[in-house]
Amino acid sequence: MSVRQVSQLANISLDRGTTLLIFDRVLLRQNRAWIESFPSRYAVTSGERLKDLRHFPKHSQELLKRWPKKAGHGEITIAAFGGGSVGDFAGFFASVAKRGVRFVQIPSTWLAAVDSAHGGKTALNVGGAKNQIGTFHPAEKIFLVKQVLQSQPGVRLQESFGEILKAALLAGGPLWRSLKAKPISADQIWRLLPRLIAAKMKIVKQDPRETLGLRSLLNLGHSMGHVFEGQLGLPHGKAVSMGLRFAIDWSIHRGLLSETLWAELEVFEKQGFFPSTSDYVRCLQRLRAPSRLLKQDKKAAGQGKIRFIFLRRPGYPEIAKVSVEQIEMELRRQRRQLVSISRSH
Amino acid sequence: MSVRQVSQLANISLDRGTTLLIFDRVLLRQNRAWIESFPSRYAVTSGERLKDLRHFPKHSQELLKRWPKKAGHGEITIAAFGGGSVGDFAGFFASVAKRGVRFVQIPSTWLAAVDSAHGGKTALNVGGAKNQIGTFHPAEKIFLVKQVLQSQPGVRLQESFGEILKAALLAGGPLWRSLKAKPISADQIWRLLPRLIAAKMKIVKQDPRETLGLRSLLNLGHSMGHVFEGQLGLPHGKAVSMGLRFAIDWSIHRGLLSETLWAELEVFEKQGFFPSTSDYVRCLQRLRAPSRLLKQDKKAAGQGKIRFIFLRRPGYPEIAKVSVEQIEMELRRQRRQLVSISRSH
Repeated sequence: MSVRQVSQLANISLDRGTTLLIFDRVLLRQNRAWIESFPSRYAVTSGERLKDLRHFPKHSQELLKRWPKKAGHGEITIAAFGGGSVGDFAGFFASVAKRGVRFVQIPSTWLAAVDSAHGGKTALNVGGAKNQIGTFHPAEKIFLVKQVLQSQPGVRLQESFGEILKAALLAGGPLWRSLKAKPISADQIWRLLPRLIAAKMKIVKQDPRETLGLRSLLNLGHSMGHVFEGQLGLPHGKAVSMGLRFAIDWSIHRGLLSETLWAELEVFEKQGFFPSTSDYVRCLQRLRAPSRLLKQDKKAAGQGKIRFIFLRRPGYPEIAKVSVEQIEMELRRQRRQLVSISRSH
Repeated sequence: MSVRQVSQLANISLDRGTTLLIFDRVLLRQNRAWIESFPSRYAVTSGERLKDLRHFPKHSQELLKRWPKKAGHGEITIAAFGGGSVGDFAGFFASVAKRGVRFVQIPSTWLAAVDSAHGGKTALNVGGAKNQIGTFHPAEKIFLVKQVLQSQPGVRLQESFGEILKAALLAGGPLWRSLKAKPISADQIWRLLPRLIAAKMKIVKQDPRETLGLRSLLNLGHSMGHVFEGQLGLPHGKAVSMGLRFAIDWSIHRGLLSETLWAELEVFEKQGFFPSTSDYVRCLQRLRAPSRLLKQDKKAAGQGKIRFIFLRRPGYPEIAKVSVEQIEMELRRQRRQLVSISRSH
């Protein structure tokens, strides 16, 4: 696997005769000439509907019609140009089409560029349950294109910041300090991208197929993040920020983590990149009991337990098995405590 | 991967709390008690319809409902009890369910016991084109059960003999001599099973993911076999026998193989296990031009070429790239030649 940063799409070398390009149709507006330079291409509409297994047979049939005809089997490459859902879908197709062909990713969103394009997970949803069907099929090459990422509206960077913060909290050390040191901007994140990705891949490489439990460290902020996402419809990165608040608060309450982390996080809160106490309280109050969503958690460790990731300090995450009931109890505790704090203000 | 021969189903050790059994519903008649000892189980109807990708979403949803609830993710095993289509379907599901779980096969047909249960290929069909979607997901354990295999009608052994003959022709040497030495019977094939499987696995291990071209040796008899199967609806093993006749005749015509092989094959023909000249001629005459089916061949080598497997002598197969046109020309040649032979009789 190799990650390359390039300034423009034109700098990507992909053989037009052997590549089948799967792209988010909204990208046509700004990149039509490049997209249409691929004779084999397939437009999709991004989002959870694309990941619905029920639509996969229809997509497969269309994709196989567009299969590069003159290429030998070993030469075929599927390339995904889009955000997380396009990468998840196209990666799954690449892993099962003719029993698997090469895969290349060109993420078009910060969220995909920082997180989902890396680590080899592909996934489809089944009947509303997320990522129930999938494979491990790492992209051979991932191209990060400055022109594409910087053309996103600024709000997308805020919406993806949860995954950026998660990577830096897991890495700790210089990366954590660098993230705090300068105002968050597209330029700053573009410069930090290689180190943010390396922080994730360091964990992935120790447990590429999630068989040892180690990879679940990447789930920091996600157990409750998925509940915020599923119940309140928050963008994934925002939901993860909320989930990080939950995990940090619980870690402090358990005496694992020092309260001083709140002060360090204030720099992000002030820029609108981390939820304020009042934002967080509003979300907590809108949650219903999350047990059903938590029980579907793929980090399920059997016997109704979940691998929950606590934090001792930046760079020192810790895996613990907790029950769904313990999570719900902690949720009630935070709600009580925070509501009384925000009332006293 | 381990292959075990046991006399009865009861001798198979599978944890009932962590195993999801996918079984061919016709097996209920003779094995109800054993099947119903699995709390998590799913009945399917075998055949190509089961392998149709369009039905996969519905099956997946039902299978996920039956997921063993008390087990941790790493403990889950999908077990397939059935013939080739059940193994192909269940193996594919096992490879993609929650990004892949352990897989166990209990083949119920000679064809699956000799061939399809081994080597890790899983597959589904897309819009009439066979095996377009699939994975490599080898079974961790394969249980061959004498009681189950011997309860099949005798004709199933005849229908599967093409794959048995293919394995012995690829291996040559002692296995080829053993197969010729005794009358073909269920007992005799049961005894030869480990060596027939080893002959296949010797090739698979050199090229497990079919990336080097070597694994295509297992395609001996299959390029045209798939045409006989697709156009005439012959059982797979019978179609492969016809395909072997085609490949042998072509190999002799090219001067690669000695004509004396025909005399050796007579022992099988006399027992009804290898097509006679008149059977073969009848099939040849019913074939339409096979180019469409040949072009879908997964052994496609690009530029309209196919990897065709010739035979120099038992134990010495040879891969050559040929064009679809060359295959069609050879088909016309054999038809002309054999029709004139059978007329002169």
